[in-house]
Amino acid sequence: MHRPAIVIAAGALICVSGPASAQPASAGSVDPAVIENLVAASRILAEQGVVDAFGHVSIRHPANPNRFLMSRALAPALVTADDIMEFDLDSNPVEQRGRGMFIERFIHGEIYKARPDVNAVVHSHSPAVIPFGVSQVRMRPIMHTGSFLYAGVPVWEIREAGGATDMLVRNGALGKSLAEKLGDKPVALMRGHGDVVVGPTVQRAVIRAIYTEVNARLQTIAISLGGPINFISPEEGALREQAGGDDSRAWDLWKAKAMGK
Amino acid sequence: MHRPAIVIAAGALICVSGPASAQPASAGSVDPAVIENLVAASRILAEQGVVDAFGHVSIRHPANPNRFLMSRALAPALVTADDIMEFDLDSNPVEQRGRGMFIERFIHGEIYKARPDVNAVVHSHSPAVIPFGVSQVRMRPIMHTGSFLYAGVPVWEIREAGGATDMLVRNGALGKSLAEKLGDKPVALMRGHGDVVVGPTVQRAVIRAIYTEVNARLQTIAISLGGPINFISPEEGALREQAGGDDSRAWDLWKAKAMGK
Amino acid sequence: MHRPAIVIAAGALICVSGPASAQPASAGSVDPAVIENLVAASRILAEQGVVDAFGHVSIRHPANPNRFLMSRALAPALVTADDIMEFDLDSNPVEQRGRGMFIERFIHGEIYKARPDVNAVVHSHSPAVIPFGVSQVRMRPIMHTGSFLYAGVPVWEIREAGGATDMLVRNGALGKSLAEKLGDKPVALMRGHGDVVVGPTVQRAVIRAIYTEVNARLQTIAISLGGPINFISPEEGALREQAGGDDSRAWDLWKAKAMGK
Amino acid sequence: MHRPAIVIAAGALICVSGPASAQPASAGSVDPAVIENLVAASRILAEQGVVDAFGHVSIRHPANPNRFLMSRALAPALVTADDIMEFDLDSNPVEQRGRGMFIERFIHGEIYKARPDVNAVVHSHSPAVIPFGVSQVRMRPIMHTGSFLYAGVPVWEIREAGGATDMLVRNGALGKSLAEKLGDKPVALMRGHGDVVVGPTVQRAVIRAIYTEVNARLQTIAISLGGPINFISPEEGALREQAGGDDSRAWDLWKAKAMGK
Repeated sequence: MHRPAIVIAAGALICVSGPASAQPASAGSVDPAVIENLVAASRILAEQGVVDAFGHVSIRHPANPNRFLMSRALAPALVTADDIMEFDLDSNPVEQRGRGMFIERFIHGEIYKARPDVNAVVHSHSPAVIPFGVSQVRMRPIMHTGSFLYAGVPVWEIREAGGATDMLVRNGALGKSLAEKLGDKPVALMRGHGDVVVGPTVQRAVIRAIYTEVNARLQTIAISLGGPINFISPEEGALREQAGGDDSRAWDLWKAKAMGK
Repeated sequence: MHRPAIVIAAGALICVSGPASAQPASAGSVDPAVIENLVAASRILAEQGVVDAFGHVSIRHPANPNRFLMSRALAPALVTADDIMEFDLDSNPVEQRGRGMFIERFIHGEIYKARPDVNAVVHSHSPAVIPFGVSQVRMRPIMHTGSFLYAGVPVWEIREAGGATDMLVRNGALGKSLAEKLGDKPVALMRGHGDVVVGPTVQRAVIRAIYTEVNARLQTIAISLGGPINFISPEEGALREQAGGDDSRAWDLWKAKAMGK
Repeated sequence: MHRPAIVIAAGALICVSGPASAQPASAGSVDPAVIENLVAASRILAEQGVVDAFGHVSIRHPANPNRFLMSRALAPALVTADDIMEFDLDSNPVEQRGRGMFIERFIHGEIYKARPDVNAVVHSHSPAVIPFGVSQVRMRPIMHTGSFLYAGVPVWEIREAGGATDMLVRNGALGKSLAEKLGDKPVALMRGHGDVVVGPTVQRAVIRAIYTEVNARLQTIAISLGGPINFISPEEGALREQAGGDDSRAWDLWKAKAMGK
Repeated sequence: MHRPAIVIAAGALICVSGPASAQPASAGSVDPAVIENLVAASRILAEQGVVDAFGHVSIRHPANPNRFLMSRALAPALVTADDIMEFDLDSNPVEQRGRGMFIERFIHGEIYKARPDVNAVVHSHSPAVIPFGVSQVRMRPIMHTGSFLYAGVPVWEIREAGGATDMLVRNGALGKSLAEKLGDKPVALMRGHGDVVVGPTVQRAVIRAIYTEVNARLQTIAISLGGPINFISPEEGALREQAGGDDSRAWDLWKAKAMGK
């Protein structure tokens, strides 16, 4: 198998460079610890059941807000530092070198364009979330770990943006429509497909993606019990989000599990 | 335990030959890489929870459309290259040599007869699918990974073909009836039993079998939420199937997991 | 920890003997392969999720129908050949030697008294089965692997036998009442507690216990889909039971998994 | 990472001492076997799915009822003996040494104040329990392993104690309100958050926490079957609790699993 020329040595930086002709310029090297967390994010999402063979996670380039980093097309559980590629916000690769790319990378590029506050994007087929994307029932926060859902979870209908499609976000126009539906929220569902989850850090985006899945599962159970559900109120949700949380407690555990350490 | 004389060496071919008397002639040797994928298919289906101790997968012989290959009677998780046998389309073994055979091999033979486009067949007791086979509710595609279900999922009622039976597809007549119910579809449910899933390649048949299970699970949840479900439309399903997909992304991941590599 | 003097050597027989005073006489030594299958049964039930820390399985003594063999009080996943004890059908130990005994061993003794056709008994808190024991909905076979349920699944109400109790089958009278409710069936549910599953062999009892759990799970899902359920008919169930099945296919797989081989 | 100076040597005692200035005095050294069980409790709860990255378990100090022991802020699966800290019942640390503390330690301190019979407290986001905390349906014992729920499971509404909050038990007043809602029961649910489970020993508290989760899961299923549920009666529950049980059978199994032995 062809291997990209990116070299990762212990303590070294990733050099993403080379002659830029028709392709966008690189934003330059990235701290390997940053790449390691992006790789960990991919594997955590697989280990925690948010992604299966499909789905992807990206981060905005630390040195240039107009670039983002994500894996070549590969199952999330198999991603390594060598697989990370750089893209501009139109989702063009800085240096493709024959590597396969996720068709739906436009989800990421268009969200980074629309949301300066966002530094990480997860797209998944989060299983418990799918039913809420095809139903009239809206997701709402059932417990404090899902409190970030308090302002509502919009559902993106690809038919409104593209008519009858093959369901994939194959271009910037569809990605832009999805980003508009997301608005200023942390999560949007994609009808018959999955969701997008964003955050100011890759840790926060991953933790939100996992608790979006957990919240969907428990909201489904609560509905099956019958009767009204006492959701986290918007005021409670806002207070919880303001207070912040200990992201490292969950991240450190899940990273250790996902990286087999 | 008796071991068949088939020899698999690294890089060698499987020689399935010998004096044909009352038995059908062999279609000849098969590339070990093809056999390895059939073995992987069996183990992937076990690892992904589509089969438990029962169920089986076959491929059409690459050199002769009138032969197919499947394991001797064995739990799918335990199948190795040595266990693969060759059958004609009446499901007679080319060379039995005392090996136990799946009683329901007629499912495979009759589908290969009826469907020249099919090169792989999965039969399983896919757990989430069983309830749809005994209910009035039809399976429909709830997400794009299940889009191949868009043209409908027929349910085969063995009583119509054989009256009161022990539920097993014990002969060609029952197999033929099932193949007729399948028609030109990729999936048919078997009432009180399981399903059959077919594909042009073993990879596609396995991926479809896994997402048939996933789709059933998520459709059940969507039903429990109440209200109408916004399914993948037939037009969307057809477009998704035409566009094709990256089978190797899922296959490579699942094969690595199932083969312990 | 005190260890019983039973010696298991490769190829040797277990000698369960010693001076019988107020205690019942031993039925004599047992083939280690028989003991190994009893140990495997215990571990398979744990590995397959039918038992957790509680539950037990026994076999009738091969040499004397008035004796049975089961583990000292121990979590099923931890049972070894050294832990197997011998009991008479009043559930008195042949040789206690200070070992803790399952309080509910009377379930086993009384069923062996009442059912000469039974050579193995499983008692578990099979999770998916519990809800059917406390509901008005009866378990019925939803697929052919659960066809042995075709003649009905009685529910034993301990209140009818013992009034208000601590729910445990602490004596022969309660055990006898349960055995009577079981009648000639393979499975009886125990309200608010679990079930008993019996068979002519330990393999069959274990396979039935596992598919009783699976059937309960899938019947629950089918009910949630709504509408009538097309169950395995009594005639189909009887035909399936008469035809028999390949117990070794499932047993060999599950034993290999449970014994870590 | 900073490591506390606590030294654990084989067979030695943990010395939690040092100059007490503005901080409470230590109740003195603790038998390492006691600490080991507290560590095991934390890991068992993770291994059995009662806690994920969050949640905590504590024990009352064996030598002083006015002190309790729990981990520094850490995912339960990662806790070691080195991470255990000592607190007074106002949840002040005896010796913080820069270690992060669980914000919600007040849950523990206030319950120890209110309940002299309690020597161990578990707080978790037990997933199957969450829906019962936000619904009108009350948890009741569906099987004998959940019989300790017979006297009722109160639901604590943090809004009644603190109005709109970020949902965390951040101080003694909220902890006291929760302890009052718990009353003399073994379990109280926390709306939109999780539960607290207490016991006279850490083994009993952990076993109860696990079977509270199991009971919630099975009660949900029983509700989905429809119709009235035949719960464990208060009289049966009381008899079961009086009879006691074999805590070591479950504890030994789960500890072996959780500690990887």
